[in-house]
Amino acid sequence: MSASAVIQGDNAVTAIESVLANALLPDGRRAHVDLAGGRVAAIRAAAEPAGGTGVPVLDLAGALLLPGLCDGHLHLDKTLLGLPWVPHQAEPNRMSRIETDKKVLPNLPLKTAERAVNLIRRCVAQGSAHLRTHVDIDLESGLSKLEGVLEARARCAEFATVQIVAFPQSGVMRRPGTLALLDAAVGAGAALVGGIDPLEIDRDPKGQLDGIFAIAERRGVGLDIHLHEPGDMGLFNVQEICARTRAAGLQGKVTISHGFCLGDVPERKARAAAEAMAAAGVALVTHGAAGWALPPIAMLRQAGVTVFAGNDDIRDTWSPYGTGDVLARAALIGWRADFRRDDEVMIAYDLVTDAAARAMGIAEYGIKVGAPANFFTVAADCVPEAVAGHPPRQLVFHRGRIVAEDGAALDRPAVPGAGRAGRN
Amino acid sequence: MSASAVIQGDNAVTAIESVLANALLPDGRRAHVDLAGGRVAAIRAAAEPAGGTGVPVLDLAGALLLPGLCDGHLHLDKTLLGLPWVPHQAEPNRMSRIETDKKVLPNLPLKTAERAVNLIRRCVAQGSAHLRTHVDIDLESGLSKLEGVLEARARCAEFATVQIVAFPQSGVMRRPGTLALLDAAVGAGAALVGGIDPLEIDRDPKGQLDGIFAIAERRGVGLDIHLHEPGDMGLFNVQEICARTRAAGLQGKVTISHGFCLGDVPERKARAAAEAMAAAGVALVTHGAAGWALPPIAMLRQAGVTVFAGNDDIRDTWSPYGTGDVLARAALIGWRADFRRDDEVMIAYDLVTDAAARAMGIAEYGIKVGAPANFFTVAADCVPEAVAGHPPRQLVFHRGRIVAEDGAALDRPAVPGAGRAGRN
Repeated sequence: MSASAVIQGDNAVTAIESVLANALLPDGRRAHVDLAGGRVAAIRAAAEPAGGTGVPVLDLAGALLLPGLCDGHLHLDKTLLGLPWVPHQAEPNRMSRIETDKKVLPNLPLKTAERAVNLIRRCVAQGSAHLRTHVDIDLESGLSKLEGVLEARARCAEFATVQIVAFPQSGVMRRPGTLALLDAAVGAGAALVGGIDPLEIDRDPKGQLDGIFAIAERRGVGLDIHLHEPGDMGLFNVQEICARTRAAGLQGKVTISHGFCLGDVPERKARAAAEAMAAAGVALVTHGAAGWALPPIAMLRQAGVTVFAGNDDIRDTWSPYGTGDVLARAALIGWRADFRRDDEVMIAYDLVTDAAARAMGIAEYGIKVGAPANFFTVAADCVPEAVAGHPPRQLVFHRGRIVAEDGAALDRPAVPGAGRAGRN
Repeated sequence: MSASAVIQGDNAVTAIESVLANALLPDGRRAHVDLAGGRVAAIRAAAEPAGGTGVPVLDLAGALLLPGLCDGHLHLDKTLLGLPWVPHQAEPNRMSRIETDKKVLPNLPLKTAERAVNLIRRCVAQGSAHLRTHVDIDLESGLSKLEGVLEARARCAEFATVQIVAFPQSGVMRRPGTLALLDAAVGAGAALVGGIDPLEIDRDPKGQLDGIFAIAERRGVGLDIHLHEPGDMGLFNVQEICARTRAAGLQGKVTISHGFCLGDVPERKARAAAEAMAAAGVALVTHGAAGWALPPIAMLRQAGVTVFAGNDDIRDTWSPYGTGDVLARAALIGWRADFRRDDEVMIAYDLVTDAAARAMGIAEYGIKVGAPANFFTVAADCVPEAVAGHPPRQLVFHRGRIVAEDGAALDRPAVPGAGRAGRN
């Protein structure tokens, strides 16, 4: 089949719109990738002619083509990107950070939507295609941050998908009225209900977990619950979350964010928690654990838990660090987890690709015929090299269009091989 | 004083050779920096005219100018940079890595010198000016790796300084003949004597430490000893090293590399070790501790210990990870150490600048009149922003010449403002 042919699938006949020629695929093959309607129309051997009459061809010249990355844990509403440097202002504890947010964020010269757009574009520039962000829902700000992030999502719809968790950063039971706001947030566009440290923050695990699971059941959505609590305190809530997930039939739709407790208990206890999570279909997302012990990723996976990764704070009111590069974050996690062999580095890769897509419910993920054409290119011989060294992203594609080049998002998506964009 | 004036210092009269105009200095001032003889000749207010007649001027346009970074822990002889991807081949333990090196490294298609040059240039491209590298000295390879690294150092002499530790990777007492080789390595150009895990590897702490300290005393050089040993085993050797440092009068010339034990003992015990290190003038260099607990950097500094940082393995036979960016490594360490406020982020910065220069014995460090003109530029408002976000390095200067631009080392140094190099 030549690139100018029309192809048939799902009863639709679509003309090839552009060709990414001479790509190195993750499995090592060299191929031409035909794009049509924002999707992969065909993957052809590189020995064939790349293009046909009038079809734009972008020669990737052997660059490694990888699927758009998944960043499973962000806080788009908290970032300070786009502002001059803002020094960290909170005291060194979680409650101070929660309260400082309420003083700092409403008074910034850039609104939530602007800052969130800046961060989405930063993530896209580094190869991310799918973002899950928590957005603060609280009594002071109501749904205003959600509205800002929804606006940012709409403005960046051609650049990435954004999945929103309605996040009760200030607590749930200690702040009566929050449950109603979380419910309203789901009605307004949040795809998941959040939670936070039911013991440490709310001092009422039954109250918080019953409340947020009730919203999820009623609304038919999943949950993603921040769990910073250490040791046995954290494990208690892991078990509570797993029990409620099974009872509600929400297997595969619930995530625990951080789960630091899994890294600081004896392996025997962590294994019991892992088995409960696997049985309940509860996933874990990690940002690499910063000052905490890293959860035992290999053991969790072996037990059947879906483990994925995200950047968490990126130059925001909680942390001055973070670059938006989730491939670099995968490498950091691999380094901390002592993943050295190629098959181990591939675990780090899985955290920000397939495993994350599974946990985030992203259908049709990966480089395959019929799937959305979300990719990026790097100069690397193979996937382990791309992860370990995470070299600069060359081109980023979303829905078949170029959306970033050489580390910067474009103003608007460009057709590969047509005119200025790309290395052709 | 205008940039064309001749200046006087140390009885020498030198004409200004080039001017870096409109730099943002670490202290927030905007300034022109006059260069002569590879050094800073003057730092002038940016309100003055930048240049005089015939003096090349490079306009930095307000970019942040920072002193060339110090990478305090590298293994130039082990890197695989420049080769197609080589999967990690060792079993998951230190002894297997030691033995695997002996099979892999001698049979690579690129010699030590070539690979070491590649890594030096990679580090330079990211702003490093001063490197301390360990080089394996063992019965199988003798001084051959040292010779390769010495050749690489000579070839890169205009790009960075390289300080070599004669490193008994395979052990000392368990491999009779190694002490003589270490002594010969110092004679051949190594600036420090190394050591490794006197209990775990050699099972003879007295033998190893007496042996390597004797060489250091006789040769009048310092020591840098790898200490991976955990808990109380590691603390035992910290105390042994401190006692010998004081007895030999080597205060300020001895470094412990890693010191993982300091991170995994109760604070009371770590504090006692820190006090012993401070009293003996024994420094600690950390690479961020990977899978181990991070040593308590703030406490160590408070106790008076010089703590600095380095990348350690960079795409080598021990680890597939590492990029050569020691500013990113400082950020990683700050993230793990929970350094969020600007004054804390400045501790992370200190680890790869002033503290490292002090530990490495680099005189005349920093951006000041008379000091070697070793700098780099980044787009940042201030030092904490440069560390936390570690944006791409724009220009790197060594001894007054541009040696790297936009993330790549030049073939040969270029005069700032003269012709192609630089953003002028």
